[in-house]
Amino acid sequence: MQAIGFEKVDITGGFWADKQKLNREVTIRSVHDRFADTGRFRAFEFTWKEGSDEPKPHFFWDSDIAKWLESAADIIAKTPDPGLLAEVDRVIDLIEEHMDPDGYFNIYHTVVEPELRFKNRDHHELYCLGHLIEAAVAYRTATGSDRFIDVLDKYVDLVIKAFVTEKTAAFATPGHEEIELALIKLYRVRPDRKYLDLAMFFLNERGKKEERLGDWAKGMYNQSHLPVREQRTAEGHSVRACYLYSAMADAAKETGDEALFTACKAIFDDITQKKMYISGGVGSSHMGEAFTVAYDLPNDTAYNETCAAIALSFFADRMKDLELDSRYADVVEREMYNGVIAGLSLDGRSFFYENPLEINLIDRVRHPSVSADDRLPITQRLEVFGCSCCPPNVTRYIASIGGTAVSADENAVYLHQFMPMTADTPFGKLSVETDYPRNGKIKISLSADEASGKKPRLYVRIPGWCRNYAFSAPYSVEKGYAVFETDGREFSLEADLSMKVELYRADRRARADAGRVAVMYGPVLYCAEAVDNGSELFDLRLDEDCEPGISYDSYFGANVIKMKAYRTEPAPDALLYLVSDPPKKETEAKLIPYYAFANRGESDMAVWLRKA
Amino acid sequence: MQAIGFEKVDITGGFWADKQKLNREVTIRSVHDRFADTGRFRAFEFTWKEGSDEPKPHFFWDSDIAKWLESAADIIAKTPDPGLLAEVDRVIDLIEEHMDPDGYFNIYHTVVEPELRFKNRDHHELYCLGHLIEAAVAYRTATGSDRFIDVLDKYVDLVIKAFVTEKTAAFATPGHEEIELALIKLYRVRPDRKYLDLAMFFLNERGKKEERLGDWAKGMYNQSHLPVREQRTAEGHSVRACYLYSAMADAAKETGDEALFTACKAIFDDITQKKMYISGGVGSSHMGEAFTVAYDLPNDTAYNETCAAIALSFFADRMKDLELDSRYADVVEREMYNGVIAGLSLDGRSFFYENPLEINLIDRVRHPSVSADDRLPITQRLEVFGCSCCPPNVTRYIASIGGTAVSADENAVYLHQFMPMTADTPFGKLSVETDYPRNGKIKISLSADEASGKKPRLYVRIPGWCRNYAFSAPYSVEKGYAVFETDGREFSLEADLSMKVELYRADRRARADAGRVAVMYGPVLYCAEAVDNGSELFDLRLDEDCEPGISYDSYFGANVIKMKAYRTEPAPDALLYLVSDPPKKETEAKLIPYYAFANRGESDMAVWLRKA
Repeated sequence: MQAIGFEKVDITGGFWADKQKLNREVTIRSVHDRFADTGRFRAFEFTWKEGSDEPKPHFFWDSDIAKWLESAADIIAKTPDPGLLAEVDRVIDLIEEHMDPDGYFNIYHTVVEPELRFKNRDHHELYCLGHLIEAAVAYRTATGSDRFIDVLDKYVDLVIKAFVTEKTAAFATPGHEEIELALIKLYRVRPDRKYLDLAMFFLNERGKKEERLGDWAKGMYNQSHLPVREQRTAEGHSVRACYLYSAMADAAKETGDEALFTACKAIFDDITQKKMYISGGVGSSHMGEAFTVAYDLPNDTAYNETCAAIALSFFADRMKDLELDSRYADVVEREMYNGVIAGLSLDGRSFFYENPLEINLIDRVRHPSVSADDRLPITQRLEVFGCSCCPPNVTRYIASIGGTAVSADENAVYLHQFMPMTADTPFGKLSVETDYPRNGKIKISLSADEASGKKPRLYVRIPGWCRNYAFSAPYSVEKGYAVFETDGREFSLEADLSMKVELYRADRRARADAGRVAVMYGPVLYCAEAVDNGSELFDLRLDEDCEPGISYDSYFGANVIKMKAYRTEPAPDALLYLVSDPPKKETEAKLIPYYAFANRGESDMAVWLRKA
Repeated sequence: MQAIGFEKVDITGGFWADKQKLNREVTIRSVHDRFADTGRFRAFEFTWKEGSDEPKPHFFWDSDIAKWLESAADIIAKTPDPGLLAEVDRVIDLIEEHMDPDGYFNIYHTVVEPELRFKNRDHHELYCLGHLIEAAVAYRTATGSDRFIDVLDKYVDLVIKAFVTEKTAAFATPGHEEIELALIKLYRVRPDRKYLDLAMFFLNERGKKEERLGDWAKGMYNQSHLPVREQRTAEGHSVRACYLYSAMADAAKETGDEALFTACKAIFDDITQKKMYISGGVGSSHMGEAFTVAYDLPNDTAYNETCAAIALSFFADRMKDLELDSRYADVVEREMYNGVIAGLSLDGRSFFYENPLEINLIDRVRHPSVSADDRLPITQRLEVFGCSCCPPNVTRYIASIGGTAVSADENAVYLHQFMPMTADTPFGKLSVETDYPRNGKIKISLSADEASGKKPRLYVRIPGWCRNYAFSAPYSVEKGYAVFETDGREFSLEADLSMKVELYRADRRARADAGRVAVMYGPVLYCAEAVDNGSELFDLRLDEDCEPGISYDSYFGANVIKMKAYRTEPAPDALLYLVSDPPKKETEAKLIPYYAFANRGESDMAVWLRKA
């Protein structure tokens, strides 16, 4: 299957057009300004010296700006913006200006600790280069110019020399994966074999004995515990892990390496069947921001870094290009409407690093000796943080969201995600009209180029959440996709993916969810907030047999749900323990999209609720 | 109401006679040997020097041995043991020998840091003295000798000088309460006003502004945040807190201080209506071993130090002497059969410091980077630990348990706890025959001294857990006690406190217990262990409508319960989230007494279980 780049998808309205507009008009500027406030942009002038007033650059600042550059390029690709382009060009100028004659570029390891170049595996130099490469590829797509790639090409040559040819570097593979997927992305736009070879070198070297250097469980933290082809479970730091798995999927695609594909499939199953929150969040523990053991999904202490949801979406999106199976695009969709956008405030200015599935504000005062900043879970989004990887990851994710929607190969067009759009496919223009995810009615048309004589098939994903669906044309079902034969001319179709309020149970082994249900409507996960329902949400019990009310709420830009529910009265006689159920009273639960929680002040919140 | 000392109660058989025999034959020796192994006994020879091979004394070691001495004296009081007495005398000899000419006695502050005498509020000197005083009082009760008290009297005089008269001490009240209750206990056997005055001094000074020195929330950690008469809630370190509250109750009893009584009642309500586990455990957090906020009762991370259960039992037992109300003796009973003895292994050799109400062994492997010793919850009892306060606290608690059973005043005898016994009351001999807590049938007789002409009333507690009861003689009910008029001669009575399996719910605000029930049979709390029921106990659902089976199990020395229950099958298709309940199958849950958990190897355990 041949992936289609996002640049060929034009989102014409609806949920994602609104998000992209907010991203373009507010978020990209807000992230820019916070990065400027904190000295990240100025760091590219290489003026920091010991004792100077400037903030000392951190060794991952290059990557923060790189993701901002990539986001800006993605935006410019769809909506020309000369001012924004000038800002991007200015940073590229600075990179070119301050690059060492040998091609090396890294702010921290030039102005702060130059003696540590390629000496510390955990110092993110290759991670930063990876993000710069992704930005350069996006810049090329947006502008048609190879300039940024050409600048970085010299650095890539230096890396090949230091790591592959002369092995002067003090380590063999990066402590934080990212460069691997970036090199393959670069290879796809400039098919120079050296890029793919370097990516394969890093993949092949990882987990060899000498790389098992981490101080945590023999290298699990950065997936160096086993050679990548022998890995079968998701382990360690969840962002590192999913960037690696994305690169493995890319490599399997480019090389046809079956062992990599097998590893990717097993890891994907391990994540999605045992280690993924219903929101799509992964990395349940704050210790190491890591995957833990199967079914270990605590809700209030859920870590769920926003970047990890993005990284899993990347991995799933790549898997869909390796194998026809709707569950890959299902996971992308789960991240789109839940795991990733929970990380962004509705006003587009603030971000969660962690994304809990339950907040009980009482926890924040149970230990008077713990300072407010150290308390879990986090309850409010912030505009910028010390380790501010998530904000520019969200901006690039939203700017490039169309890229997940459509793909094609020599015989067919595949519609994976539903949004109003037009897309140029090898067989002609694909048009989609829909209010999705407000409802599941979708009009699809493929204006095939009749002159070509080709009669492409059209594959339309049947989402995993959908139990009742109808199509206006004959179809067969293949691996979760409805398959339509076209006649090589204009082909039109109406799909009705019937949405109803569904109460999900977790597998019995997911301890934190035992006896509870989570509410979804279509792809959107819901939650209860105290601001609507009062606190003590663990006492709120949904009536599964009620007829839920669905209504559009313009504040959330989404449906809200109302359900009959029950609340317990306080126990009589102030008894802490009593032998019968205390009196209950009927109430109405108001549920809002999970992604919209914490937009109306600090509030208790719960995704998993009890049943009456 | 006049408390009757335990020395007048002779436990003649049954549950507590067995526990006392084990305590006498195994536990007291085992604790002795572990304290000898670790250098605690040798420390009393004052031979430690910087650089010597001996273990360096800790500043609370005096108190560990003091509690052992008290336990030994309590045992000797009932079962003469010349060998044990000789060991006790040997330690008293060493105390006398190494006491400073001015009366000061503390190992650490003599051999390690003499310059810190009465300089550091958190160095436990007064706490150690308190435990020595309690031991001296027990020694007097056991032997009739004032020798130990006389030795310590000199130290008390020094404390009065340093803290009250000359105020040369660097602080005003102890960082760890204990001496206050000890001084009042001493005052009761030797009514020298100086003891009561010193206790009142420490109580009255606590929480004055200058004492709010702690680094935790203005002194809450050691109850110095407010003057004691203004305190209304249980705060801070739970053992410190309940020792203080015990002393406040004692002081209210001795002085008739209404403000102290009011504070004690409010604090007792706060603990038992908002902060006490169903096991009687208190101090829910490992941070500061402390009380937290109301209804904050997590089961797997429950800290519940064994000493805190003992201390709350002390507090409740003192409250019963201040006010007729069965809920005080109810709390003592809750501790006797649950909170305290959970701390002791069935073989009498090992101890829990913390007492969780839920164990999921999977938690111990979720973070590969956390060492096994640092993982919560603890899963197995240990023979000795660095801070080994709990073992000798358990030995003295068991040795003196009879003291909680009976009290008397000028008009009546009160039977608070049920066990086979004879007790010498001011009105003649009280005899009790029962298999309690195996069942609730109790034969009681009071052989009043007919010649005295007195016609005492007999008060028999109706336990809070008991919903159906019958007595063979006419009675009225007063504050949870059945009241019988006797004719001043032999009075016999049969009581039937009907036991049935009860499924308790927690108040709706106790988040951790939402949707769950805890099983009790009479005063005994039950739990499920994986060794009987398989793991994933959060999936086990009890059938509330079943007829539970009750049978005596000699291994546990107690009844076990069998109940119809259900288990969920794994979700079909390896789905982590599914829209309908997965298939369930019927099973039988075996429940054992909570106090007996963790006696058959590491195992998952749960007190709060779901209902079918």
